[in-house]
Amino acid sequence: MKAFEVLKKHEIDALIVIGGDGSMSGAKIFQEEHNIPVIGIPGTIDNDIFGTDYTIGFDIAVNVAVDCIDKIRDTASSHDRLFLVEVMGRDTGHIALRTALTSGAVAVLVPEGPMSIKELHEHLAYLKSKNKSSNIIIVAEGNPTGNAFEVAAQLEALHSFYETRVSVIGHIQRGGTPSVAYRVLAAELGTYAVVSLIEGAKGLMVGVIDRNMTRTPIEDAVNQRNGLNEELFRISDYLSV
Amino acid sequence: MKAFEVLKKHEIDALIVIGGDGSMSGAKIFQEEHNIPVIGIPGTIDNDIFGTDYTIGFDIAVNVAVDCIDKIRDTASSHDRLFLVEVMGRDTGHIALRTALTSGAVAVLVPEGPMSIKELHEHLAYLKSKNKSSNIIIVAEGNPTGNAFEVAAQLEALHSFYETRVSVIGHIQRGGTPSVAYRVLAAELGTYAVVSLIEGAKGLMVGVIDRNMTRTPIEDAVNQRNGLNEELFRISDYLSV
Amino acid sequence: MKAFEVLKKHEIDALIVIGGDGSMSGAKIFQEEHNIPVIGIPGTIDNDIFGTDYTIGFDIAVNVAVDCIDKIRDTASSHDRLFLVEVMGRDTGHIALRTALTSGAVAVLVPEGPMSIKELHEHLAYLKSKNKSSNIIIVAEGNPTGNAFEVAAQLEALHSFYETRVSVIGHIQRGGTPSVAYRVLAAELGTYAVVSLIEGAKGLMVGVIDRNMTRTPIEDAVNQRNGLNEELFRISDYLSV
Amino acid sequence: MKAFEVLKKHEIDALIVIGGDGSMSGAKIFQEEHNIPVIGIPGTIDNDIFGTDYTIGFDIAVNVAVDCIDKIRDTASSHDRLFLVEVMGRDTGHIALRTALTSGAVAVLVPEGPMSIKELHEHLAYLKSKNKSSNIIIVAEGNPTGNAFEVAAQLEALHSFYETRVSVIGHIQRGGTPSVAYRVLAAELGTYAVVSLIEGAKGLMVGVIDRNMTRTPIEDAVNQRNGLNEELFRISDYLSV
Repeated sequence: MKAFEVLKKHEIDALIVIGGDGSMSGAKIFQEEHNIPVIGIPGTIDNDIFGTDYTIGFDIAVNVAVDCIDKIRDTASSHDRLFLVEVMGRDTGHIALRTALTSGAVAVLVPEGPMSIKELHEHLAYLKSKNKSSNIIIVAEGNPTGNAFEVAAQLEALHSFYETRVSVIGHIQRGGTPSVAYRVLAAELGTYAVVSLIEGAKGLMVGVIDRNMTRTPIEDAVNQRNGLNEELFRISDYLSV
Repeated sequence: MKAFEVLKKHEIDALIVIGGDGSMSGAKIFQEEHNIPVIGIPGTIDNDIFGTDYTIGFDIAVNVAVDCIDKIRDTASSHDRLFLVEVMGRDTGHIALRTALTSGAVAVLVPEGPMSIKELHEHLAYLKSKNKSSNIIIVAEGNPTGNAFEVAAQLEALHSFYETRVSVIGHIQRGGTPSVAYRVLAAELGTYAVVSLIEGAKGLMVGVIDRNMTRTPIEDAVNQRNGLNEELFRISDYLSV
Repeated sequence: MKAFEVLKKHEIDALIVIGGDGSMSGAKIFQEEHNIPVIGIPGTIDNDIFGTDYTIGFDIAVNVAVDCIDKIRDTASSHDRLFLVEVMGRDTGHIALRTALTSGAVAVLVPEGPMSIKELHEHLAYLKSKNKSSNIIIVAEGNPTGNAFEVAAQLEALHSFYETRVSVIGHIQRGGTPSVAYRVLAAELGTYAVVSLIEGAKGLMVGVIDRNMTRTPIEDAVNQRNGLNEELFRISDYLSV
Repeated sequence: MKAFEVLKKHEIDALIVIGGDGSMSGAKIFQEEHNIPVIGIPGTIDNDIFGTDYTIGFDIAVNVAVDCIDKIRDTASSHDRLFLVEVMGRDTGHIALRTALTSGAVAVLVPEGPMSIKELHEHLAYLKSKNKSSNIIIVAEGNPTGNAFEVAAQLEALHSFYETRVSVIGHIQRGGTPSVAYRVLAAELGTYAVVSLIEGAKGLMVGVIDRNMTRTPIEDAVNQRNGLNEELFRISDYLSV
């Protein structure tokens, strides 16, 4: 009610909302109740919104994680230590997968492709037999095997020769100066959101797929899910061996 | 000759070369002379290679420039000063345009769309009349109007009320820790280069266009030119007003 | 034995060792066994070596922690959340105290000045009554009250209105590009170590106290402890209120 | 006049001013005209204020310069190129000297110890004969030999085999996130300024000398000059060879 009054007072006749599924669902309801056209812009670090390859915030969240892991790697040369780094991502592994790929991690635990401690241990043993030097494992917060401390404890219990170290990046990932990729995406989506309103669109979320601007009904964007990039998963696997 | 001996000695039967037009042209000749298949990966900060949207190095070069300009903006609140920042890019404006867009510059001088001092002055006067607060101008090293000091001197000569400050980023832009976008691109192109060799390809450069992996004859990649992204130019213009 | 052979072979007649108490104690024994003069340079992030105000590594470790916390603060505006950040420091609170002071934390748990959960809760309640906006607590790894997750759980158990978030910086703190203060200290201590050897000193650790170069017997440096800077403790207290 | 009204209205009975000589001189006059006690805190990147070892802003300005030069060094391996980097500092060489020391520069041109092009050339030739690998020269903006472009041109004119590259850091140095050393100094000086006012002091600038808090009459702080740290000059010389 109050929001509507404010819009009327300032003669604002359309709304652009930047946020995740909560914000966009709310905006959609607002549009229906007050007949104000709404356009959504996907803004979350988790990259879990359907209808766009990337959400605003995702690139910087991964850059922050990778920057942290680069620092860990400075002292990660000791071969008998495992470094477990827990990253955000809610119930998706977008951040974790991209972080793993770009930080040279040997394994990544994500909700979309669970790995048991036994499988993880076998993978580590295989890499050791290949003299793979990296010893960093990325743990997505939403993965079913456990958080970073739990995974570390289970690995140590399994084989006493693992000495583990844990970092939990947590809300560090929600801050930082926007990267260039972030700013370009924001400029493109913001411009396209305005263009869309001018063209009479409403109830849609703007996005970018294969570098083309797209529009998706907000309810689809919110109810469906942006799957992991299978190709990146495959490349990450190649590179970790 | 010597390079070929080294390859033979180590039983290397194909070559992947990462670099700009010089490196790739040389590799092409090497392929013809020694019948060794060659695949090129576009690696230059200038983003001027045909056959790919992005070259490895471009994203980090822009991030470095924008990071510098963020620091300038910390003290750029004085309204009667103009800050001219010269960036690299050889005879293209890719770095300059992307830097201008993502650092909120009011104007950008690039080789592809020259602007006379008179036009620049009129643009600045117009923005002043609109109370635009930013006062940062990006100058591409290869633009015909002049380098940053020359442009500053000409503006000051034209109207004594401009007080100008110049930064020349220069080779600072060639360093820095690789960004995530850079690493993802490198992983994708590197993987695709290997796949291409396995498939029997040669004399081609791998690239990415609209997020799809592509292959372009090295001579085309080197002889043609990657034009500026017109859409970004237009968005940059919108946002600077 | 082997180290001594290497020195003899290369006609090295003195040793400068950079490290913590372990490295320096070992070097002292080496000096006694082989009659090779040894000078120590305090190199540890923990700043716990006696005979110097600062150790090499300390400044950058704190900068890394503060950089992380600056990112947390970007989203830490929500008033009912507590952010607990665990930093390194072994059994001293040097890193934690300096991090707390320079990141505007509301409380810091260090080994040297333990605080019970009850005291911490009272402190937080007092600050809340003063409308203090920061909500970041620094937890030194060696403090007796518990690690960051344990402290968070105890606070939540005590009063259900605390919603807590935890980051564990861990080995991220052991990396990063050396800061200027770090490099200046390294240049000063390195130069003074060489000068000391030339002057015939041995079995000593070089350090800096009140900006004057000092020398301390290695056994004192290792056996005694660098106490917390009481003045910083007091200032940190002022500023947190 | 107006400032005095504001103070009276808000019942403010003392003033702490943070700034360089201009701000502090002005505050001193204000104190005399209105009988309001004033304490100064030295805040300038140039470190040229008498009565303190360090000014607030100095550490971060040097860190920004060194961060830029670290990026240049990433590609500065080519042995026949000279990189000239111009830094700020007004008519003192504090920033330049500390930057040179901590970035491994082979030479530094400062106002306090001028070096002719001929001397610089001889120094470079000597280093070349020693196979010194660095090729970075720091140019203080206020040095009498010329700005970075002028020095580069003169070197190239003297000997055609120098290929030079120039970066001008300029106002980039005035921004950036405060470093830990900066924040500690600010906390110490701020606290001591308040303590000083409570003790009845006025017309003084607080500072830190050899890690002890000090007070200096504002007119001395402004009229005298903080000389270069001779010891650092000497160490920088050692390390450049």
